[in-house]
Amino acid sequence: VEDGVHIYAPATVANVGPGFDILGFAMNHPGDEMLIEKTKAAQHIIIDSSGAGLPLGPEKNVATVALDAMLGQLGSKQKFQLTFLKKIAPGSGIGSSAASAAGAVYGANVLLGNPFTTTGLVPFAMMGEEAASGSAHADNVAPALLGGFVLIRSYEPLDIISIPGPEQIFCSVVCPEISIATEKSRKILKTTVPLEKAVTQCGNVAGLVTGLITGNFRLISDSMHDVIAEPIRSFLIPEYENVIQAALNAGALGCGISGSGPSIFALSKDEDTAMMAGEEMDRVFASADIGSSVFISPVNKQGIKLLPEGT
Amino acid sequence: VEDGVHIYAPATVANVGPGFDILGFAMNHPGDEMLIEKTKAAQHIIIDSSGAGLPLGPEKNVATVALDAMLGQLGSKQKFQLTFLKKIAPGSGIGSSAASAAGAVYGANVLLGNPFTTTGLVPFAMMGEEAASGSAHADNVAPALLGGFVLIRSYEPLDIISIPGPEQIFCSVVCPEISIATEKSRKILKTTVPLEKAVTQCGNVAGLVTGLITGNFRLISDSMHDVIAEPIRSFLIPEYENVIQAALNAGALGCGISGSGPSIFALSKDEDTAMMAGEEMDRVFASADIGSSVFISPVNKQGIKLLPEGT
Repeated sequence: VEDGVHIYAPATVANVGPGFDILGFAMNHPGDEMLIEKTKAAQHIIIDSSGAGLPLGPEKNVATVALDAMLGQLGSKQKFQLTFLKKIAPGSGIGSSAASAAGAVYGANVLLGNPFTTTGLVPFAMMGEEAASGSAHADNVAPALLGGFVLIRSYEPLDIISIPGPEQIFCSVVCPEISIATEKSRKILKTTVPLEKAVTQCGNVAGLVTGLITGNFRLISDSMHDVIAEPIRSFLIPEYENVIQAALNAGALGCGISGSGPSIFALSKDEDTAMMAGEEMDRVFASADIGSSVFISPVNKQGIKLLPEGT
Repeated sequence: VEDGVHIYAPATVANVGPGFDILGFAMNHPGDEMLIEKTKAAQHIIIDSSGAGLPLGPEKNVATVALDAMLGQLGSKQKFQLTFLKKIAPGSGIGSSAASAAGAVYGANVLLGNPFTTTGLVPFAMMGEEAASGSAHADNVAPALLGGFVLIRSYEPLDIISIPGPEQIFCSVVCPEISIATEKSRKILKTTVPLEKAVTQCGNVAGLVTGLITGNFRLISDSMHDVIAEPIRSFLIPEYENVIQAALNAGALGCGISGSGPSIFALSKDEDTAMMAGEEMDRVFASADIGSSVFISPVNKQGIKLLPEGT
């Protein structure tokens, strides 16, 4: 067993279209790097080498909350030093807290001789999400850990299903420089849904996974509609309709709010379309004097990975 | 173009588990036979050779309502004589009206030189369903026409998706001799659904189609739960919980109300289990002094078919 590992934890898009709370995917980039090392210190040590303003107290940091859930299950008193080089901006809606929480448990699991499978780490990483947002959702941490498209079929009991995606599919994410608290974004949702909207959402999510598995891009495109969360949450994002329309005009298959926003994602069949969609979405924000960052990436198939030593 | 065709229209199970209103499948048997012939009469002629008590007036019969929707679209004044040999008991919840409506338009389409694709016949057959139950649902008529598992991804616009199922999967259906009006069964449903139940239903329906496409029987089994309609509708069926439990004890993957009931179906991995599940479900009804019919069948892959001439 080594004493330290260097890992890469990818950004993730949750609430993919009609898959509110149950479907996410990972991107190749952006992603966080983390150095995870065993320490003889009395408590975990958090080093923020990226200046992202992470909470440094172990009881408040999503990574150490997740880590302690895992160590508690093992009955282990081992402490770790976590050095973060964060590239995923906290609060942007592309799984920043998930990358930290999932990365920490993934690295520590390796250092402890893999007592858990990768899927077995999801519940611990979810504890980090709960600390971050008040909701123990898995649709960021599961794709961060496993890569690809991941369905959270059920929360009780937890059932994590990797959805075989098309050979290639590309994502454009635009992160506008505005801030939305995940917790608030959840609270504005209505607690009931009209029956016919529930049926519509079911049809779309069944269509979306069918389209992904069978490589039916027409079906993916037609199914990419969330009639439950998006009509409410989109009000929190200025220019939402125009950004979506710009991506669709550029040829994207479909769009949605990434996680609870404010980022907006689009899926495209090829990289050129994904780049065009990203540019056009960015342009809409720019024309409204809102700064934004754009990321174009294939859907990541591997999830969190160890980086070669010395990198 | 011939002047008459002899067709076989299979029974179907709608509302498959979490696929309330959107997922159905066809069975090999039971099924109705119909003889569909062109006639020079001034209106359609309905002959009920099975004594099923079908409405004989063309304006009330689901088959002729569907037929007239199709003929209206074509601007055709052709009339047909429909001879029914019904084996699917009306009101049993396994697509009796769907078989009549879908069978009529299928046969007439052949006799008219196939102006429509099979999928293109679904909207006309739905008009028959609307006449029968007040709701133009497609999750019986679409699998009756196409065979296999069929997803109604969307009703507006209508989007019918064949779900590639496992190589083999078997169905047991038990039809108790009690009667439930489809219309009533729909009216007792609540018009709103708690958000978390909508999310649970979405997870299960996505899991179910994923399980069907990838041949993951564990996932099919775990996903076969309807948290929206079944908890309410099951009160209309005596012995419901006991019947379900008997099928699961016999090894069935999962169970549910077929359509709006009163029939109950179970899916099983192999024919022996399906037979055992059927027997056990039947036994529960018998022990409560309720007569019932049992059908065991592979999931039908072909849908409505022409029978050889002279049969």
